[in-house]
Amino acid sequence: MRPCEMSLAAAADAIHAGELSPVELVDSVLDRIEQVEPHLHAYVTVTAEQARRSAREAADAAAADRLLGPLHGIPMGLKDMIDVAGAATTASSRVRAGHRAAADSTVAARLRAAGAILVGKTHTHEFAYGLTTPQTRNAWRRDRVAGGSSGGSAVAVAAGAAVFALGTDTGGSIRVPAALNGVVGLKPTYGLVPRHGVTSLSWSLDHVGPITRTVEDAALVLSALTGHDPRDPASVAVPVTDYRPSADTDLAGVRVGIPRNYYFERVEPGVETAVRNAIGRLGTLGARLVDVEIPMTRYVQATQWGLMVPEAAAYHEETLRTVPDRYQDDVRILLEAGELMSTGDYLRAQRSRTLMRQEWARMLEKVDVIAAPTAPMTAVRAGEESSTWPDGTIEGVSDAYVRLSSPANITGAPSLTVPVGHDATGLPIGMQLLGRPFGESMLLRVGHAYEQTRPARALAPVG
Amino acid sequence: MRPCEMSLAAAADAIHAGELSPVELVDSVLDRIEQVEPHLHAYVTVTAEQARRSAREAADAAAADRLLGPLHGIPMGLKDMIDVAGAATTASSRVRAGHRAAADSTVAARLRAAGAILVGKTHTHEFAYGLTTPQTRNAWRRDRVAGGSSGGSAVAVAAGAAVFALGTDTGGSIRVPAALNGVVGLKPTYGLVPRHGVTSLSWSLDHVGPITRTVEDAALVLSALTGHDPRDPASVAVPVTDYRPSADTDLAGVRVGIPRNYYFERVEPGVETAVRNAIGRLGTLGARLVDVEIPMTRYVQATQWGLMVPEAAAYHEETLRTVPDRYQDDVRILLEAGELMSTGDYLRAQRSRTLMRQEWARMLEKVDVIAAPTAPMTAVRAGEESSTWPDGTIEGVSDAYVRLSSPANITGAPSLTVPVGHDATGLPIGMQLLGRPFGESMLLRVGHAYEQTRPARALAPVG
Repeated sequence: MRPCEMSLAAAADAIHAGELSPVELVDSVLDRIEQVEPHLHAYVTVTAEQARRSAREAADAAAADRLLGPLHGIPMGLKDMIDVAGAATTASSRVRAGHRAAADSTVAARLRAAGAILVGKTHTHEFAYGLTTPQTRNAWRRDRVAGGSSGGSAVAVAAGAAVFALGTDTGGSIRVPAALNGVVGLKPTYGLVPRHGVTSLSWSLDHVGPITRTVEDAALVLSALTGHDPRDPASVAVPVTDYRPSADTDLAGVRVGIPRNYYFERVEPGVETAVRNAIGRLGTLGARLVDVEIPMTRYVQATQWGLMVPEAAAYHEETLRTVPDRYQDDVRILLEAGELMSTGDYLRAQRSRTLMRQEWARMLEKVDVIAAPTAPMTAVRAGEESSTWPDGTIEGVSDAYVRLSSPANITGAPSLTVPVGHDATGLPIGMQLLGRPFGESMLLRVGHAYEQTRPARALAPVG
Repeated sequence: MRPCEMSLAAAADAIHAGELSPVELVDSVLDRIEQVEPHLHAYVTVTAEQARRSAREAADAAAADRLLGPLHGIPMGLKDMIDVAGAATTASSRVRAGHRAAADSTVAARLRAAGAILVGKTHTHEFAYGLTTPQTRNAWRRDRVAGGSSGGSAVAVAAGAAVFALGTDTGGSIRVPAALNGVVGLKPTYGLVPRHGVTSLSWSLDHVGPITRTVEDAALVLSALTGHDPRDPASVAVPVTDYRPSADTDLAGVRVGIPRNYYFERVEPGVETAVRNAIGRLGTLGARLVDVEIPMTRYVQATQWGLMVPEAAAYHEETLRTVPDRYQDDVRILLEAGELMSTGDYLRAQRSRTLMRQEWARMLEKVDVIAAPTAPMTAVRAGEESSTWPDGTIEGVSDAYVRLSSPANITGAPSLTVPVGHDATGLPIGMQLLGRPFGESMLLRVGHAYEQTRPARALAPVG
């Protein structure tokens, strides 16, 4: 196995044991980037030179038994919405031409302090405002979308072009590309991971979180990201926790809610089958499967868009006036629409969110997690604009991709997507596990237990 | 001293010691109501019969040594924005004709459980949307405004027509009438006292809190009000605390911030003198007086109105359509204006609030409390619409009354107003003490120490 194929946990253990050098690992990942990047376009910038320098320093430190932290020497990609001191945060947009971040974002600083090594900034749908990331190709099939908006991060991790990456998630932007590329993505509870230094799409819905190849890896990254930061006004002061799940796969006593409504409606048959099989596996591991009724589902779409669209417009107010032509058309049109929305509609969305949070809290008293498809369909062809469902409805691709992921943004509940197989054409499928606010440990426990029942996965067969 | 003149602390101690019967106390307060109410109009409804019945039950329980709680047998008024099961919550508005609350608000239930006895519902400026409470007269001079919106509560307490009362405060509505009637008012930290069952004016600025004749009394009421209630989405889970201040008046080590800007600008000379004298007294008690610069003051007005006006319009959306003529003109015009405000302006106000909170937090690292005038002027004549300041500016009465109190609503910081004397015409003046979020104990300590240096105050000389 090449080092670039190793899980974060395995690589970190090997580095700690002196069996793997950060130089070997970083070189392996950079070689892999060189090999796959011409086909995938996952990265805005690859920081090869700086990464090799850091790898040598990390190797010296490891040789001297001075490990920086649990991620010592691990190569990572950061979505290009995340500030790294001295580098541009392009948000994959011409609007940011000439940008240069003055300081590290909180998450970049924490990962650096934990020993991680940046290999590059990954592509996002422009300003994270879309679900496809058109610059980037799916890691499994080049004619398919990467998913978005953290498409570059998910594709890089799936292809072995990073050991882990960070994404941001406002309506599903970590989980959808993770699902579409067969990797793990975690949108943490709202307020758990500080967003200081991360470009905002919609401040009341934005989250930062890890994309990895295993659930255990997501737990390791999350453990390095949490901790209160008053510079993010939404940051919550909760005790720092070690999220690494135990090896125990017994799920006796865990109540898994299976949605009776919403989450299995207008879902591709291949997706439904894979997710129901995975849920069955949770039952085999001892979990109690319980039917649940998802509340207020007819408010999801209006609430998500009613909050996101005006907040995004407010964030871009100035550049929409000064450099409107630098935006891609799809993003500019959404931003301009946001300026026309009435305050009444925004406030209705706020109030509806408050009610949804209360109803979800009530539902989550009865179960420990909810298991559901992450996205209703696998990766569509690049350029495809809508899907036609068997009931005759035609749905825009973005509407379809956010449909099942946005409830976790509205309610702030944590959501973990894990790969649960492939459809008939070989495209990956994700199952999301949703839980109570700050209930990440439970999601990671269930996801990790499920993962142990599946064969270890190789990198995506790029090309 | 008649029982109606006693402080809550003294009355509660006397009841606990068996030296005062709840029947005597309630009768004394009801007699006082009968005497002063024709002049003051503090109450929407006086629940005399029910109060006398409750007083007899409380007396029986006291005789049997079964005290309900620390407020056993204490007569109170509740602003008529606060639900009491089976009674109308009129909000002093014709819009609420035929209203009947199905259940107690959280605060009414908690005060009932602590033993307090309702003597009546007090007048509010219609739906709490104004600073004068035109139905009610100032307890000190009948030609003067009561202040608002909790005018009925402040006047009732000042006149001995309740031992304590609750008010609500969205821009100053507890503190302004308390200051204008020479009593104590506490706007707690945002989220500390649950608002479930309290009519909303502007959900992101609304607070509920006590109006009393002493600081110690405010502490006793606050202790009965706190505790998490998930039915108010803003309610914060902080440990329940006994807020009663110690008898110690030594303020050594306490840093009191004196604003260099904003709080002493466009303030009546009599108000400035009284507040500066009171601050001097805090210095005599050992406090260290420190100059502070109040941040972002030019954003205060736009932020307060930018948040309040659209949220109020959203709350009243339906009745504005169905029964617009039942509102008073001043309130209807404000509500209709709220429907015209742009989302961009509302979001700018939200973002400005976030920045103000951060800047205030930074300022409050350097001092423990800030001392300032509560309102820039004493009670104006009823019907007066504006004030002319020496610098030539003309300011609407409502704008002037919220000017110094609204920063605490925007930032969520606690603010306690204490009486600090009278102007040349004999009208009361209030000083507010502002503190860190959840720093109520510090405010109460400083306010209580100050109060010990002043002669005990009699009831307002109604008539």
